[in-house]
Amino acid sequence: MDIQDYLKQQQEKIDTFLTQVVPPGNPLAKTLYESMQYSLLGGGKRIRPILTLAAAEAVGCQGQLIMPYAAALELIHTYSLVHDDLPAMDNDDYRRGRPTNHKVYGDGLAILAGDALLTMAFELCSQPATESGIPADRQVNVMYELAVGAGHDGMVGGQVMDIQAENQDIDLITLQTIHNYKTGKLIRAAVRIGSLLGGATQVQLENLTGYAEDIGLAFQIADDVLNMTGTREELGKDAGTDAKRGKKTYPSFYGIDGARDLAEDCISRALRRLDDFDDRADPLRSLANYVVHRRN
Amino acid sequence: MDIQDYLKQQQEKIDTFLTQVVPPGNPLAKTLYESMQYSLLGGGKRIRPILTLAAAEAVGCQGQLIMPYAAALELIHTYSLVHDDLPAMDNDDYRRGRPTNHKVYGDGLAILAGDALLTMAFELCSQPATESGIPADRQVNVMYELAVGAGHDGMVGGQVMDIQAENQDIDLITLQTIHNYKTGKLIRAAVRIGSLLGGATQVQLENLTGYAEDIGLAFQIADDVLNMTGTREELGKDAGTDAKRGKKTYPSFYGIDGARDLAEDCISRALRRLDDFDDRADPLRSLANYVVHRRN
Repeated sequence: MDIQDYLKQQQEKIDTFLTQVVPPGNPLAKTLYESMQYSLLGGGKRIRPILTLAAAEAVGCQGQLIMPYAAALELIHTYSLVHDDLPAMDNDDYRRGRPTNHKVYGDGLAILAGDALLTMAFELCSQPATESGIPADRQVNVMYELAVGAGHDGMVGGQVMDIQAENQDIDLITLQTIHNYKTGKLIRAAVRIGSLLGGATQVQLENLTGYAEDIGLAFQIADDVLNMTGTREELGKDAGTDAKRGKKTYPSFYGIDGARDLAEDCISRALRRLDDFDDRADPLRSLANYVVHRRN
Repeated sequence: MDIQDYLKQQQEKIDTFLTQVVPPGNPLAKTLYESMQYSLLGGGKRIRPILTLAAAEAVGCQGQLIMPYAAALELIHTYSLVHDDLPAMDNDDYRRGRPTNHKVYGDGLAILAGDALLTMAFELCSQPATESGIPADRQVNVMYELAVGAGHDGMVGGQVMDIQAENQDIDLITLQTIHNYKTGKLIRAAVRIGSLLGGATQVQLENLTGYAEDIGLAFQIADDVLNMTGTREELGKDAGTDAKRGKKTYPSFYGIDGARDLAEDCISRALRRLDDFDDRADPLRSLANYVVHRRN
């Protein structure tokens, strides 16, 4: 399969859904909805929702039923970017080639838009079972995965670890832990949520979880490499920011080539996890290669 | 019943539960857990979780099963205070008689602690049905109520409305809408969640929803009055801040006495909603009176 075609097709599906997700809203809170839409619809690779859809497909479930849950992952990812970009955190002015949310709407609105996007993720996942077409116990499991992957023992925890570690002389184990929490746990949730919704067996769920952990690590290594080697045009945000902030990265331990090799090892492991799956897992196979070979 | 005794008893139960809710956590994110605990365990009237427990009791359901959901409401309330107090929003230095979260941990950590508290609310509500003892479809309904009450079309929406209206010459209808979103919708969710968990009939749910809407309004009117008449010692935060910010309040439309009368009317309406309930609704009855007669 052609991964670029596949990605484009899935991105379009997801973007169509996301366009309808944020309602016009109450006019008294007009700027909230504008601010949410600004960040949600401002491009983005949609990796996490694509992983959710692909994991569901790998266990034999396709279609629109999965879409609200896939979208929930993108809402959470988007909120995390909006909050991370704030002056109180990374203080970034550009994101996906455009001014960051707080540069356009101010810090207060950016905080609230992030809060609303995060909360809306759970609104999307908790539609009544009769409408959602997903058994209620599965919905509950999915929301638990989402909350744990996104929260104190997941993405938010990782963000705090990252802040605490800035300008500290951390070792490789610590770096790996930070990345695992900051990026890995939400990617893991994305894949597990798709698997659970699709009705994966326990063995399938374990293999897909392993796949997710492997590509999550590869994703972060590739991000570190891109931060060093990419241009502002390719990345849609400032390049070389890690080095400027004195942040430890995979290339700072292994060099650029060593980091790239490590990412390839992860991908090989991830692919072996899919050995017992048929060709409905081809999107997951292609995605594994994509995460390390992408240009942004 | 003695409302002060009842409140004290329920607060202790809830505080005991909340103390165990935030785990020690990963040492690499130590400050996150400290920051979450600082705000979650820093006192507070626990009105929302008490309403959840009392609503469940009114329809005949008591006990520890309800506690995680009640706690979830307090987590959401706490996160909203942490974010609202930030310099980018209300810029308050004191809360519940202590320095606000960002004054102790910095703005970045306060934002992330708020994010983690919000996410953890959904973690608490999505424990597997086998462990939670609540049917999964009820859990899904509860999480939907929570997400809608807390999010863009609820509390967060109200916060944005409030910011947009500052220093504007708003009319009474607009004031009422803002308060309804900012405070009313989460109180409504607290009562509905208790009712749903307790297995309320459709008629009971409607009456309890009406009760919640009436006391929610009364609660906000009382808050406006307290902001004008209370002292910093009573309130645990600065008094008279609304007038300083040029905010329109119920007393600015009705005068202090007029606002108090209006709150009493709401309480009478709320009590009539409970006419068909037996003495298990007595806590709800006492709470209705308490929300307007409290001193902080």
